[in-house]
Amino acid sequence: MYPPSIQKLIDLFSKFPTIGPRTAARFVFYLMKISKEETEELINSISNLKKTVKICSFCFNPFEGEGELCKICADSSRDKTLLCIVEKATDLITLEKTKKYDGLYFVLGGTASTFKKKDVKQLRTKELGERIEAHSEIKEIIIATNPTTEGEATALYLERLLKPFNKKISRLGRGLPVGAELEYADEETLGAAFEGRK
Amino acid sequence: MYPPSIQKLIDLFSKFPTIGPRTAARFVFYLMKISKEETEELINSISNLKKTVKICSFCFNPFEGEGELCKICADSSRDKTLLCIVEKATDLITLEKTKKYDGLYFVLGGTASTFKKKDVKQLRTKELGERIEAHSEIKEIIIATNPTTEGEATALYLERLLKPFNKKISRLGRGLPVGAELEYADEETLGAAFEGRK
Amino acid sequence: MYPPSIQKLIDLFSKFPTIGPRTAARFVFYLMKISKEETEELINSISNLKKTVKICSFCFNPFEGEGELCKICADSSRDKTLLCIVEKATDLITLEKTKKYDGLYFVLGGTASTFKKKDVKQLRTKELGERIEAHSEIKEIIIATNPTTEGEATALYLERLLKPFNKKISRLGRGLPVGAELEYADEETLGAAFEGRK
Amino acid sequence: MYPPSIQKLIDLFSKFPTIGPRTAARFVFYLMKISKEETEELINSISNLKKTVKICSFCFNPFEGEGELCKICADSSRDKTLLCIVEKATDLITLEKTKKYDGLYFVLGGTASTFKKKDVKQLRTKELGERIEAHSEIKEIIIATNPTTEGEATALYLERLLKPFNKKISRLGRGLPVGAELEYADEETLGAAFEGRK
Repeated sequence: MYPPSIQKLIDLFSKFPTIGPRTAARFVFYLMKISKEETEELINSISNLKKTVKICSFCFNPFEGEGELCKICADSSRDKTLLCIVEKATDLITLEKTKKYDGLYFVLGGTASTFKKKDVKQLRTKELGERIEAHSEIKEIIIATNPTTEGEATALYLERLLKPFNKKISRLGRGLPVGAELEYADEETLGAAFEGRK
Repeated sequence: MYPPSIQKLIDLFSKFPTIGPRTAARFVFYLMKISKEETEELINSISNLKKTVKICSFCFNPFEGEGELCKICADSSRDKTLLCIVEKATDLITLEKTKKYDGLYFVLGGTASTFKKKDVKQLRTKELGERIEAHSEIKEIIIATNPTTEGEATALYLERLLKPFNKKISRLGRGLPVGAELEYADEETLGAAFEGRK
Repeated sequence: MYPPSIQKLIDLFSKFPTIGPRTAARFVFYLMKISKEETEELINSISNLKKTVKICSFCFNPFEGEGELCKICADSSRDKTLLCIVEKATDLITLEKTKKYDGLYFVLGGTASTFKKKDVKQLRTKELGERIEAHSEIKEIIIATNPTTEGEATALYLERLLKPFNKKISRLGRGLPVGAELEYADEETLGAAFEGRK
Repeated sequence: MYPPSIQKLIDLFSKFPTIGPRTAARFVFYLMKISKEETEELINSISNLKKTVKICSFCFNPFEGEGELCKICADSSRDKTLLCIVEKATDLITLEKTKKYDGLYFVLGGTASTFKKKDVKQLRTKELGERIEAHSEIKEIIIATNPTTEGEATALYLERLLKPFNKKISRLGRGLPVGAELEYADEETLGAAFEGRK
């Protein structure tokens, strides 16, 4: 129905996370409406992305600038005895915003919902082991995977994997989130809220 | 539009919690369809409610049976050193289902969203004080109001009110609920999850 | 968990349309809170319902008052040449509110989603045939079942059933509803909107 | 929080229709993960868009290929006596999919929610007038704006504007859409459904 070059772009945008063909079509019509300058700005930004953004050699957080380390890893005032493992870079950003943590991070690169080799291979577990071995100053490892089924399976996998390093291993606390109502909370969350009372 | 006796019943059902006139109308048509026996069963159940259900003289939980105390309060195996304050009786039921708590309860009867006299008057704070005074075996008071704005205000109010009793006062733990994703959690919840890690 | 007489009432309210056990529990706690007078008003309204509400002997619409006929059927100014078949009494009310129709109604009493005997038996098709036969002044029969799968099947069934009466048979017009957007409309609706343009 | 080149791209994607900063961030992380070839394919598709896609000189529908006219306008088998005015190109595609219409289209380019000059200026009303004047074979003009408040206002504006051309002017039919329930339909839609019965 659409001309081929529009359809082609609809197909490409449909691969973007959360985007279906209808929204993809709206993107294309948006692009047809914006000015030539705006289109070029978008194209340049996309094409520069991989050129200017580097991946931190310690934590795998994307960053820009001099050196091998991201701002957090390069910051001498951060607590080097704490290592917080997150599933993905956006989780790192989310946790940084809380300003409640001043240790280091490690971006695992996904979850291991099953213990299948293929799943596990995608995770940076080898690099994680190397970091812990090379940095004996690390005292506590905080596994901050999502409390979803996938994140839980990954956390269990990591706990087993990290046991030989003999470090303190902790998990983000369970409980009632802000705004919740007891009536709609699941029993596991309520149980954790009782145990974690203070 | 509806005959008066239908409209009257629609109006009465519209006062039920969460029910609007459209659902109320569906209730009335449901009642017109069920058998005479079913209608009588409903009427008897409603009319028996206030006759057979008693309110526990200690915790204000509705119960049925002999004596002045509900099953929980009458149970000698429960831990009498713990008192958990809940907003309403359904919260008590919800917490009991977790099987993580074996102390006693106290049903406050609402929240004090503002510190206005009218709001506060509805709460059973006088009775709460009397219970704590009469039961010196109580060592810890767990304020289990909802982590909503109203529940929080009530908890702050209770903390201030209960301070003179010199008991340990605790609150249900905050954190990530089962199934949550870090990305969508608020900063306060994430901060609590960090602090409550274990 | 709940005392038996509360649980009993929760079970009975759970049978109400759209109501689950959680809302049913809220109903019971609502009933425990209202005054004795309010409870009695509710009980009387329920118990009076079947005593005072009569079913119109022509259209099966519930009504109150003298005689055998509801207000609409008894109204000599209504157009007796038009008969509009609706699934249920609430649909009749909904259509009356539009003030666009001044003929008579017939409440079918449900839908025949399948052509199974059990389904079809519940419908007042026998009475419908009798009305049409007895009232030769009826010229047009408007089948106003819902444009859902079930309503459509019922409409097809009725069309076949009413064919022998040799009356004009019509259906409510399809098209775009107020507030719709073309982009989200299905093709059948859009096709009807094109055909029904004016 | 994000490196500047990531933040820049998040900002650009946040301008896309329906996209907020969170989804925009997911887009950027998606782009960082895909291969260099896939990124280039996307960039080329975006940059080719304005080069290869032409706007039909009659109806303003985007198209690709030889000549000045889109496929529909160039198709000699289409009925040249019908002109259907749509708000935007995606509406044209939506209507074509119904296969219920074989006339021509005209993409207005928006709506005139108010009758303010600024709003009205964006619409291709001048070109619309020119098309109708130049093509005396047009007999009926179908105004297919959305039945939303904005679309209705635009339709009223167009009706007034097109009156001097002395053509038959029609609107898409109102009524019940597929899957609707009478109970939840508004009175205007139901009224239209009654009037449009057949």
